[in-house]
Amino acid sequence: MLGLMQDRPLTLPHVFHRAEQYFGHRELVTATPAGTTVTTTIAEWAVRVRRLAGVLDTLGVSADGRVGTFCWNTARHLELYMAVPCTGRVLHTLNLRLFPDQLVYVADHAEDEVVFVERSLLGMFWPHVDRLSTVRHVVVIDDVGAGGPALPDDPRIRDYEELLAAAEPHAGRFVVDDENTAAAMCYTSGTTGNPKGVVYSHRSTLLHSLATLFADGVGLTERDVVLPVVPMFHANAWGLPYGCLLAGSSMVLPGPNMAPDALLSLMSTHRATVAAGVPTIWMGLLPKLGEYDLSSLRTVLCGGSAVPRSLSEGFRAAIGLPLLQGWGMTETSPVASLGLLRTVHDDLSEDEQADVRAMQGPPVPLVELRIADPTTGEEQPWDGVSTGEVQAAGPWIAAEYYRGEGGGAQFTDDGWLKTGDVAVVDRHGYTKLVDRTKDLVKSGGEWISSVDLENEIMAHPKVAEAAVIAIAHEKWVERPLACVVVEDGESLTGEELIEFLSGRVAKWWLPDAVEFIEEVPKTSVGKFSKKTLREKFSGYALPS
Amino acid sequence: MLGLMQDRPLTLPHVFHRAEQYFGHRELVTATPAGTTVTTTIAEWAVRVRRLAGVLDTLGVSADGRVGTFCWNTARHLELYMAVPCTGRVLHTLNLRLFPDQLVYVADHAEDEVVFVERSLLGMFWPHVDRLSTVRHVVVIDDVGAGGPALPDDPRIRDYEELLAAAEPHAGRFVVDDENTAAAMCYTSGTTGNPKGVVYSHRSTLLHSLATLFADGVGLTERDVVLPVVPMFHANAWGLPYGCLLAGSSMVLPGPNMAPDALLSLMSTHRATVAAGVPTIWMGLLPKLGEYDLSSLRTVLCGGSAVPRSLSEGFRAAIGLPLLQGWGMTETSPVASLGLLRTVHDDLSEDEQADVRAMQGPPVPLVELRIADPTTGEEQPWDGVSTGEVQAAGPWIAAEYYRGEGGGAQFTDDGWLKTGDVAVVDRHGYTKLVDRTKDLVKSGGEWISSVDLENEIMAHPKVAEAAVIAIAHEKWVERPLACVVVEDGESLTGEELIEFLSGRVAKWWLPDAVEFIEEVPKTSVGKFSKKTLREKFSGYALPS
Repeated sequence: MLGLMQDRPLTLPHVFHRAEQYFGHRELVTATPAGTTVTTTIAEWAVRVRRLAGVLDTLGVSADGRVGTFCWNTARHLELYMAVPCTGRVLHTLNLRLFPDQLVYVADHAEDEVVFVERSLLGMFWPHVDRLSTVRHVVVIDDVGAGGPALPDDPRIRDYEELLAAAEPHAGRFVVDDENTAAAMCYTSGTTGNPKGVVYSHRSTLLHSLATLFADGVGLTERDVVLPVVPMFHANAWGLPYGCLLAGSSMVLPGPNMAPDALLSLMSTHRATVAAGVPTIWMGLLPKLGEYDLSSLRTVLCGGSAVPRSLSEGFRAAIGLPLLQGWGMTETSPVASLGLLRTVHDDLSEDEQADVRAMQGPPVPLVELRIADPTTGEEQPWDGVSTGEVQAAGPWIAAEYYRGEGGGAQFTDDGWLKTGDVAVVDRHGYTKLVDRTKDLVKSGGEWISSVDLENEIMAHPKVAEAAVIAIAHEKWVERPLACVVVEDGESLTGEELIEFLSGRVAKWWLPDAVEFIEEVPKTSVGKFSKKTLREKFSGYALPS
Repeated sequence: MLGLMQDRPLTLPHVFHRAEQYFGHRELVTATPAGTTVTTTIAEWAVRVRRLAGVLDTLGVSADGRVGTFCWNTARHLELYMAVPCTGRVLHTLNLRLFPDQLVYVADHAEDEVVFVERSLLGMFWPHVDRLSTVRHVVVIDDVGAGGPALPDDPRIRDYEELLAAAEPHAGRFVVDDENTAAAMCYTSGTTGNPKGVVYSHRSTLLHSLATLFADGVGLTERDVVLPVVPMFHANAWGLPYGCLLAGSSMVLPGPNMAPDALLSLMSTHRATVAAGVPTIWMGLLPKLGEYDLSSLRTVLCGGSAVPRSLSEGFRAAIGLPLLQGWGMTETSPVASLGLLRTVHDDLSEDEQADVRAMQGPPVPLVELRIADPTTGEEQPWDGVSTGEVQAAGPWIAAEYYRGEGGGAQFTDDGWLKTGDVAVVDRHGYTKLVDRTKDLVKSGGEWISSVDLENEIMAHPKVAEAAVIAIAHEKWVERPLACVVVEDGESLTGEELIEFLSGRVAKWWLPDAVEFIEEVPKTSVGKFSKKTLREKFSGYALPS
């Protein structure tokens, strides 16, 4: 009884042709480094995508070659988002915040053949170009014009607009027959070792895009105007670019300027209905929300790290709209769950509802989540108390890393992703993160949550930020070390801090030592880099 | 670069386990033949689905055996909707309105091994049971209780509740590994010959269910209460049952009573947010809308045949909510397009917007539509004027009929479905049906739209209904014959009708003859059966 339904692959050409055929009137607004905006229609964009497909042939990019991008959120980046996978190549979005050695490592590891670089970013990219062993062309997208930095006199340098003008546009339909063909890839910094590549297939990307259309979620429609602050170089900007093209939403692309006033002005001027970014971005905007007309906004999506309850409530107080929390990671495409309220929460107080929104919520359709003991792998009950590592399954969840890096360590025997996040799950299936597995402190057979401990330390008025790491201990296996940054102009002793914590946490949770540091080191995506701290304090001797 | 994303099949067990794990608190309300309602939770329903899976084993149904259902829209039918495909069997929903010979034909053709029949329907089913060559068990679902018709004393008769009580419930997860496995099938009456089977795969059914969640569409959520009047024996009730389980929507299942007051009372009492049915149903409800509190309704979906503009406007006038038109057919799972307004229509007058809603609209994501000349196959432009047969492609569109019936006649060389509907498409990609290919009248090389002509005839105040068919003509190839039903108590002559039409249609469109008939014959799904009329008037001699 097979084959009675059409064998139509779930591939990105469907998204392109749908946008081209039905949504030509919708707009892409891009903010430039000069502070102006450039508006183009989807119809105009589609013509350029067809030309760009010709450019990739002109440049001799292999049939399944990796094409790097080193770009902000712009309409031109969106051209690459479509032309590269629709011609069978693989879009490799390079993270602008990678350290040079990492940048070189990932471009080499992916074997990028060509890299498209915005001219304003060339100064960050070009110094490392001679270390890139596979890159044959560096195509410069001129986002700054005549006043921009001079271009190197080098045969590898090509001009984006010149190439487009000279190219033969792709005629007719794009065809990618096998939905399991790779469409895009993105590297993620693990807790140890080199960044590892996650490869998204056409199928996984298209299914993930469908999820951005669900009414119980972001629910993109043709009426929306979407401003993704989340970078297009990071996990496909949470799938919003492809989702918008599929739904026919207009987009406002903020370019390089992430200053609160720049973003608020874009939102207000272009009547954005949906915006998406990490907590740090929304923290910056919070004090200024009242200064702009944001009445068009209906959803403010927040993810990348746990959304502070106070931030979401701050938005609700200021504009009547709490943040919608999304949870996931590069390995999950990235949207795995959303912190939506359901009918079971209707009778809760506003305060209790805010607690629910601070959870990571239930999985979106097609994704499955469970929690399991990090050591034994035993599945844990959904009782709101038992903790376990979150494991994820679904058609847009990674099964392995590119080239098998890291072996199978991050995957279970039955093929689920071990996310490294530790959570409890309540009886409604709502996930609440409590820590990272790598950051748990295992003391005398019991777990200490470094996140909980950090929150208590940061509650001290003189503490700017703090990170807790585990230090090896002869008797207890591990004990916590608190690494603390004091607020400018204040002073604090370890004894004062321990005294402050007494009564706030269990006695056996109290840090064995406190180290005062200048700042907590951050990863390329702005998270606390405990890996760096652990390296810094390796061999640390706790007071006996 | 393959296999880097998890190979998770798109199969219905995902829908079942999602409903069971996250939506146990949501409800299924079923109206009984006695006029009462029975309410069950999804949690209770899920336990029964697990038992029913055991029953299918007990009955010895083959691993991929066809399981017939002869049921109304009820929670028990929904148990079959899930248990049958989740155990790898194929759900064959038998149309209650089939004529006995057709019923016997389709059950035999599908090789149904067991049929589940509601006791109130046994009188329609049992007389034909001895003609069914593959049916070994008739499981009676007792929807009427002690007062119901006596059960035949026959070893084939089994009681649903007794079987459930005795069964071993399925433990753990349901597993269907191959997403191309058949999940369900439905027969459709063509314009000629026997009914033909359309087989839905797990993949097609799950993807189609996702489409019911899109915000630009029905947009089902966990907050919805959905009342499908459209029968569950017809094209999976437009995908709503699986969509509701995936979204967590509660359902109100109307059972056998389709009387306007019964439906309105259910909607009002249970605060339905979404309802779905064919135009005939909504025509019946229209005069009574004001008598009920329908303030909970947000979407009234209408499809199955073109939605009269006046009906949709009648709903808008009465409850502020026009009908949302869906277009499709059994072969398209069935939702292919939706008549939504987009931003391009914002500046139109209310009257013009009503015209847009009377169109069948653009395709939903993953579906593609085009129009082509029915004779040459040449694709036609989207200019709002050129007509062509609508052709459809997508992962939930049929590629062939079960057992290859009908050959490839209804499919193009490049694998698109020829829908038999004739339409124009405007520049925004909105489809507007003008006729069925089989019903076009080809006069002197030009097409006469039988639908347009019927609409003009039915505009005569003394005409109750009318159908136009083509009659062979020596000179013009074909000419129109009008088959007209006069309103009760009125009289009308052919001459009066032709005079009425003069000036309303082009002179060469005027019917060559008018025949007065008692009623227009209908198909099993309530559409005009022009096939029957053509048979009745075969060899008809037009006046020269």
